[in-house]
Amino acid sequence: MRGEGWLSAVGLLAWLCCCRPGPVAGGKVLVMPVDGSHWLSMQILVQELARRGHEMVVLVPDTSLLIGGSHHYRTEIFPVPYSAAQLAASVESLKEGAFQKSLAFSDVLVNVQRLLNFTNMQVQGCEALLYNQPLMQRLRDQRFQLMLTDPFLPCGSIIAQAFALPAVYFLRGIPCGLEDKAAQNPSPPSFVPRFFTGHSDRMDFLQRVRNVVMTVVEEKLCRTLFASFDELSSRYLQEDITYRELLGHGAIWLLRYDFTFEFPRPIMPNMIHIGGINCGKRSPLPTELQKFVNESGEHGFIVFTLGSVVSQMPVEKAKLFFEAFRQIPQRVLWRYTGPTPDDLPENVKLMKWLPQNDLLGHPKARAFITHGGTHGIYEGICNGVPMVMMPLFGDQGDNVHRMAVRGVAEVISIFELTTETLLQALNKVINDTSYKENMLKLSAVHKDRPIEPLDLAVFWTEFVMRHKGADHLRPAAHHLNWVQYHCLDVIGLLVIIVVTVVVVTVKCCAFCFRKCCMRKSLKKKED
Amino acid sequence: MRGEGWLSAVGLLAWLCCCRPGPVAGGKVLVMPVDGSHWLSMQILVQELARRGHEMVVLVPDTSLLIGGSHHYRTEIFPVPYSAAQLAASVESLKEGAFQKSLAFSDVLVNVQRLLNFTNMQVQGCEALLYNQPLMQRLRDQRFQLMLTDPFLPCGSIIAQAFALPAVYFLRGIPCGLEDKAAQNPSPPSFVPRFFTGHSDRMDFLQRVRNVVMTVVEEKLCRTLFASFDELSSRYLQEDITYRELLGHGAIWLLRYDFTFEFPRPIMPNMIHIGGINCGKRSPLPTELQKFVNESGEHGFIVFTLGSVVSQMPVEKAKLFFEAFRQIPQRVLWRYTGPTPDDLPENVKLMKWLPQNDLLGHPKARAFITHGGTHGIYEGICNGVPMVMMPLFGDQGDNVHRMAVRGVAEVISIFELTTETLLQALNKVINDTSYKENMLKLSAVHKDRPIEPLDLAVFWTEFVMRHKGADHLRPAAHHLNWVQYHCLDVIGLLVIIVVTVVVVTVKCCAFCFRKCCMRKSLKKKED
Repeated sequence: MRGEGWLSAVGLLAWLCCCRPGPVAGGKVLVMPVDGSHWLSMQILVQELARRGHEMVVLVPDTSLLIGGSHHYRTEIFPVPYSAAQLAASVESLKEGAFQKSLAFSDVLVNVQRLLNFTNMQVQGCEALLYNQPLMQRLRDQRFQLMLTDPFLPCGSIIAQAFALPAVYFLRGIPCGLEDKAAQNPSPPSFVPRFFTGHSDRMDFLQRVRNVVMTVVEEKLCRTLFASFDELSSRYLQEDITYRELLGHGAIWLLRYDFTFEFPRPIMPNMIHIGGINCGKRSPLPTELQKFVNESGEHGFIVFTLGSVVSQMPVEKAKLFFEAFRQIPQRVLWRYTGPTPDDLPENVKLMKWLPQNDLLGHPKARAFITHGGTHGIYEGICNGVPMVMMPLFGDQGDNVHRMAVRGVAEVISIFELTTETLLQALNKVINDTSYKENMLKLSAVHKDRPIEPLDLAVFWTEFVMRHKGADHLRPAAHHLNWVQYHCLDVIGLLVIIVVTVVVVTVKCCAFCFRKCCMRKSLKKKED
Repeated sequence: MRGEGWLSAVGLLAWLCCCRPGPVAGGKVLVMPVDGSHWLSMQILVQELARRGHEMVVLVPDTSLLIGGSHHYRTEIFPVPYSAAQLAASVESLKEGAFQKSLAFSDVLVNVQRLLNFTNMQVQGCEALLYNQPLMQRLRDQRFQLMLTDPFLPCGSIIAQAFALPAVYFLRGIPCGLEDKAAQNPSPPSFVPRFFTGHSDRMDFLQRVRNVVMTVVEEKLCRTLFASFDELSSRYLQEDITYRELLGHGAIWLLRYDFTFEFPRPIMPNMIHIGGINCGKRSPLPTELQKFVNESGEHGFIVFTLGSVVSQMPVEKAKLFFEAFRQIPQRVLWRYTGPTPDDLPENVKLMKWLPQNDLLGHPKARAFITHGGTHGIYEGICNGVPMVMMPLFGDQGDNVHRMAVRGVAEVISIFELTTETLLQALNKVINDTSYKENMLKLSAVHKDRPIEPLDLAVFWTEFVMRHKGADHLRPAAHHLNWVQYHCLDVIGLLVIIVVTVVVVTVKCCAFCFRKCCMRKSLKKKED
């Protein structure tokens, strides 16, 4: 062996060329966002990555709600087959019904369908992008290192697969819990409540029955809901692949929640929790607002918003709010673009848009009236402001429940709302100190973390660029089918073996017994 | 509502007194370590916590292998009912057989029994401590904020429960995968290999059969193995509690591995991975050693150790190593306290103890011959040195397999060892550059992390002190029994409902059919 024995310089050189982690800065990232509020927090990560020297290219439909240009990143605008008016109508259809009927367990299908109707238009836009040959070729030629996408819609994952790019997902969740199924994350229905059930993690027997039924229904529902995603993926990628399988190729899942909001449950090593990423930075309030809230006196003020897409409501409904606000000593800042009543209460300020996080961070903020979107919820948690919650659609029904069981919020149905119920709820969260105390505890736990959510998101995005994926975190479960994953084939074999052994043993015993008896009876006869 | 509506100063004051996170420094921590190599890495955390201003009190048996005093922490020495000679004999019994028979699947019981024989003595020591009334009273009076313990042995968890202290666990694992069972962590047998099976996470059908069988056997084995722990816990705490249930009260599990070593699998939110915590710091080599390795020339040197408890081996076995080392161009540093042969090869340096991590960090380190303990493995990974592995007992058989499937190590059986097999293995890991390349890749992934393992361990320990636990990470599964967790009661109900519906439907159909037929036949007769 002597003489041949030392690590060849060639080997080391080869490693230096192929395996050494790439530079932290200077990556090239393709970003496929989802329009609406989803974009608001993803934008924070995109801007931070750009600030750290990465070239960020954001794919933007030429008709969009909130996605726009910025000097932080480059955009690639693609034409979509719908007009601004059609998009606005689609948003209206999402809101439709929200003020008319309260959400119930039986509404799961309605709830999911409303969401999908809203997203259908964006899927059409996605298809237009995929089959836009010149643009796709131009993108392919840019040799990106990574796809950063929100897998609520399929376009990003499909492009990642087509371009052979590792994908980082940025999301709150996907209907049907598809993210858990795709990431091979166990979700025991005994303590992981299914979406749209309104259950907590502590269920009684009947709730567990509903949760198990929902788990079975979800499987069927998933197939129906994502049939168009499956079809588009298979058609475009020219391979027989479901959307769930496609999502399974993702390297890292950046999940916009943590366990101060979500119930503790099993996770996978490539799931990174970045809840609160949207409330890291606070800006000073505009002078006029600053004056309004500073002069709110000992009673402080209330912030009232219903999310990025809902700034109006039926006049009759709005009247109930105005009536209630007239009776409280707090000032109210309300994002409302509906008709202003002639007798607008003095303590109410209506605004087209308001700096929610900055306002909630003001020491005089006493309560937050919100629809229960996760962005707003985390701004409430970060700033320790108790909430009055009115879920409208989507995951909001579940979100508000998560806050209510922690004793930091009161939930009321906007459908059944009266001035009295609103006053009662506000009175509780403002004057029953337990709400504020619980919220401050929750806020303290949420903010006590070894690394800030934005830094964590940046780290894992850059990690995937440096190592061309995160293969060491990819579970082998991806190589198993459903029967193998649950070891049903093994259980089948073991049952056959046990049954065979039992049958053979019984037969043998019976045979011996008969032989024995026959001998005895023969002997008796002989005697 | 006007007039009553503002957050009372009393409420805020109450929160400031009861809920505000406590100070980071100045905590008071009781430490119950496990003797032997387990202590070596826990000591690092204990010293770091002391350095950060926490008062650390370590419980030390008056007869111990490696746990000793330090100026970093205070010790409470407790008498144990065994002598140094008896302890040495118990260590010998652990090593017994390691050089005589290779580990096989069927040896799982032998393997576990050897481990437990070794720990039995420490359990006796634990019992002596628990019933040492004056010492226990003195400890109780000190009003600690936290118990830091290795749950490989039950003493720490029992004291934590008795003193109502939140517990932070520091461990590699517990036989039977008890840590997963206790933390309610799902372990699907289809891709999570059971200990002592030697499987990887990619199993063929027969391996899955063995893994499922092992899962069932483990349940039974666990009950037998931990019967004495269960009995001691119940007896001392005066409540009907199993050791598994007791462990379930732990706030945080600091696990001494990550997914560069372990196969990716589901985890729980209160499981924190701190693999590599033992190789964070490197010291300069003593002058003599520095000279020896610097002068090893282009061929470099090999580090050879078999862990903290094995520094000798049968003379015949040692001879095989000396013969092999004589034939290689590398220098060899061997921790060996057996008889030195007259013809000791020139290139071999025998030492009673060697600075393993510092040596492996030297650029001329070419290979690491190790038994496959996790400390050594992580020192190999951190420093990017490929390994020749010879498992002796405990988890080592599984550990070495995890390295071999990653192409960074050759495994040989010390029982079947010959000079040729050793030379072949050394030749491979030194001259086949793929081993070094794979190891450097693995090392790069391992060291690319958002926060150092020691800082992470400190953070979570302090977190538990600040918040008196980590309740927000505790899954509701702890409130379910086995039947409820697996929803067997729900499935039972659903099966009954389905069967009832089917039977009733069939009966109804049959009834209608009969009625129908009877009418027809009656009609025919009437006709």
